[in-house]
Amino acid sequence: MPAAKCGGTTGTPPVRTTRALMKGKPMEVAVMERVRTSDLAAHVDERVLLRGWLHKQRRLARVSFLVVRDASGIAQVVVIDPAQREEVASFLPETVLEVEGTVVANEKSPGGIEVHSPSVRPISCPTEPPPIQLQRPVLLEQLPTILDSAPIALRHPRQRAMFQIAAGSLFGFRSALEGMGFIEIQTPKIVASATESGANVFRINYFGRPAFLAQSPQFYKQIMVGVFERVFEVGPVFRAEPHDTTRHIAEYVSLDAELGFIEDHRTVMAALRDAVVGMLGGIRKRAAAAVEVLDLSLPEVPSEIPVVHFSDAQLMIEDATGEKVAGEPDLTPAHERWLGDWAAADHGSQFLFVVGYPMVKRPFYTCPDPDRPGFSNSFDLLFRGVELVTGGQRLHRYEDYLAALAARGESSDPYESYLQASRHGMPPHGGFAIGLERWVAQLTGASNIREATLFPRDLNRLTP
Amino acid sequence: MPAAKCGGTTGTPPVRTTRALMKGKPMEVAVMERVRTSDLAAHVDERVLLRGWLHKQRRLARVSFLVVRDASGIAQVVVIDPAQREEVASFLPETVLEVEGTVVANEKSPGGIEVHSPSVRPISCPTEPPPIQLQRPVLLEQLPTILDSAPIALRHPRQRAMFQIAAGSLFGFRSALEGMGFIEIQTPKIVASATESGANVFRINYFGRPAFLAQSPQFYKQIMVGVFERVFEVGPVFRAEPHDTTRHIAEYVSLDAELGFIEDHRTVMAALRDAVVGMLGGIRKRAAAAVEVLDLSLPEVPSEIPVVHFSDAQLMIEDATGEKVAGEPDLTPAHERWLGDWAAADHGSQFLFVVGYPMVKRPFYTCPDPDRPGFSNSFDLLFRGVELVTGGQRLHRYEDYLAALAARGESSDPYESYLQASRHGMPPHGGFAIGLERWVAQLTGASNIREATLFPRDLNRLTP
Repeated sequence: MPAAKCGGTTGTPPVRTTRALMKGKPMEVAVMERVRTSDLAAHVDERVLLRGWLHKQRRLARVSFLVVRDASGIAQVVVIDPAQREEVASFLPETVLEVEGTVVANEKSPGGIEVHSPSVRPISCPTEPPPIQLQRPVLLEQLPTILDSAPIALRHPRQRAMFQIAAGSLFGFRSALEGMGFIEIQTPKIVASATESGANVFRINYFGRPAFLAQSPQFYKQIMVGVFERVFEVGPVFRAEPHDTTRHIAEYVSLDAELGFIEDHRTVMAALRDAVVGMLGGIRKRAAAAVEVLDLSLPEVPSEIPVVHFSDAQLMIEDATGEKVAGEPDLTPAHERWLGDWAAADHGSQFLFVVGYPMVKRPFYTCPDPDRPGFSNSFDLLFRGVELVTGGQRLHRYEDYLAALAARGESSDPYESYLQASRHGMPPHGGFAIGLERWVAQLTGASNIREATLFPRDLNRLTP
Repeated sequence: MPAAKCGGTTGTPPVRTTRALMKGKPMEVAVMERVRTSDLAAHVDERVLLRGWLHKQRRLARVSFLVVRDASGIAQVVVIDPAQREEVASFLPETVLEVEGTVVANEKSPGGIEVHSPSVRPISCPTEPPPIQLQRPVLLEQLPTILDSAPIALRHPRQRAMFQIAAGSLFGFRSALEGMGFIEIQTPKIVASATESGANVFRINYFGRPAFLAQSPQFYKQIMVGVFERVFEVGPVFRAEPHDTTRHIAEYVSLDAELGFIEDHRTVMAALRDAVVGMLGGIRKRAAAAVEVLDLSLPEVPSEIPVVHFSDAQLMIEDATGEKVAGEPDLTPAHERWLGDWAAADHGSQFLFVVGYPMVKRPFYTCPDPDRPGFSNSFDLLFRGVELVTGGQRLHRYEDYLAALAARGESSDPYESYLQASRHGMPPHGGFAIGLERWVAQLTGASNIREATLFPRDLNRLTP
């Protein structure tokens, strides 16, 4: 007997009446509900219906194992019948299958469960073998190859786990902020002027006029503090980054929050701390399986995250390394790593707030420290020695904005509608922005932010 | 005594130690926590601290009323002391205030509560009166004026209520889909080729190369069905709509879902029905105050939303109106209104599914009806006679895609990475997309979609 073409059913035909049921025809036999692979343990000794992809196939002398992958995990299907073994041997990896079989407990099989006496029906058949070796425990292809074939590579349990972590983080972020009285907003990504500077913006042809892609929802979230007091937004931001680094991409997801009636930047830091706790809680709640797949150890967030002033941080680094850094207006990535190590060693914390960055390195809307006007009421949150979040208190008085813009030699004209808010009564306020992909990359130890981005965009990459 | 300048405190100085507390200084007196206006009824006969905006001021012969607005609602503050009345008389509308006072039950005041014996401290002072008459129960300015001053106009309780409805809808949408096993994804908005056609796309200068703003996440969400089986995305989509209508904007928020292992489009319709139920539940749970402000009546969703086939709908319209419509490839807005009335009258439903739109009006990835190949396994969901959602079953076999593109005379080259998914095993799948602003506009009876958009973008409008 020749090997079955993809399209037939091998073994006992599965019970299939769902179609008849859906069409409102009388039900003739019991409908078998599909069971997810992660739920198999609850069905030992039962006949179940699985659906998924042929992740890999292993042929031994007397038995073939089909590993079937679905969204929840994998299951091992055991084929013994020689004719059926021959039939399934023709199935390419990634064939979409429907498998009916009996769930059997077996200590030796992955997860302690396997599926016996199967009937196997291919639902959808690949036209060629996959471009990525998905059957490996960890993908061995180079990152550019993986990214070129992202539609297939993302099917690997370790690849997709990154994005389950991302989804869990978003769930936790929103839950935490909504619990603190924040309202979700959606602001435009096509804008008339650059948010923070003329540099690194993408230009659009907007019905024949020039326009730009928003580098952040900064101005809009501030305006919305005048409406809702506390707002957050999850959305794409766009930076025409001319550098090809492992830390930068041209489009990423920004988790933005802004809140009014604050005391100063420390009110914002407290809200951020609770947001991060929420994100980790969201991962634990919604992405526990992904945490296991990636073998992650999630960090503890101290009830008080340690805080160091920018100028003190510089002195500490200078003392410890002998490098001359005091007076520099910013910290380098190496300095941030040093501070991360210090926070871990001296405070047992993977998180560290650096506050009081020099005004000269912060955008014009930043509120200066009233006691040290060269420094600002702003902060970065370092996570494992990498800047994860930037935030701070903003100016809220119209006259302060005019003075800040004048001091930088900038006209206030492009900021007309932004400044309308402060012209008509804004409370002291501030906020922060978390880069989702950077968060996931840091959390999972990814060496390149592109590993934590579904379909990255950069200087050289515009597809898939 | 001259009227106090904005900046001083009138009346008894409020108890203010929060600043000292935040700075870690010893607490000298009890801290008074801010109370939201919506919570005042729980504090009758107590001294409370309010913060908010001076919504309006009413001066009678012997008493002045300050109406203070915060994110939760409004409160009436009663000022009797003549000197204090003179002082507060100088405060412009939208002055940000801190008010300490005693909560008094009074049947005659709005909400049955008012605040007596206040001390009033302006926190932030406008430089001029607001451009919008926010004190009116309903804004009377023309829509363009309201949109030009959106940063201020959105502060009106009725305006902002629209966006509390939107936030509640998003919360409910995500909760419903997550409950059905969907995973949230974030896909790129900068793309190499137009999603569905070359028309109406915005062009970007992408590092010197041409690129486009995504018209929908269609291709990416289908690809991700191969990874997670069930996915959703909430994000901006961009249409360079050359028409200036009340129903179209150039950037809107799309609620996209896509699911695999479906029977046909009816599996998608069932998921959509549950998503809509979730959205209404989210509004009830998170935006009850906004529902009250707008005096909305939320619709019931039938457990089985009525369904009519496109060709039957045409026959009904023809029978009823005498208009010749059979053979036309699409329904006009007038036809949709007729069908909406019919569903309400004959089925008691504000929702109606129209299924089986002609293939010629649907995109190439649409799955034809196997029994009537000129018609498709697709649907629109009408809500109160307006198309709210479009969806359907997609092709899932690679060869069907090649045939569909060839039949339309299109090359498959621009779709290379999209087609990679179907080349390597895709299950039968489908999905839908809901326009958030259109949903909110229909629900609230807004006559123009711009009323349900924070900062609309259209042919003529790029700011604020």
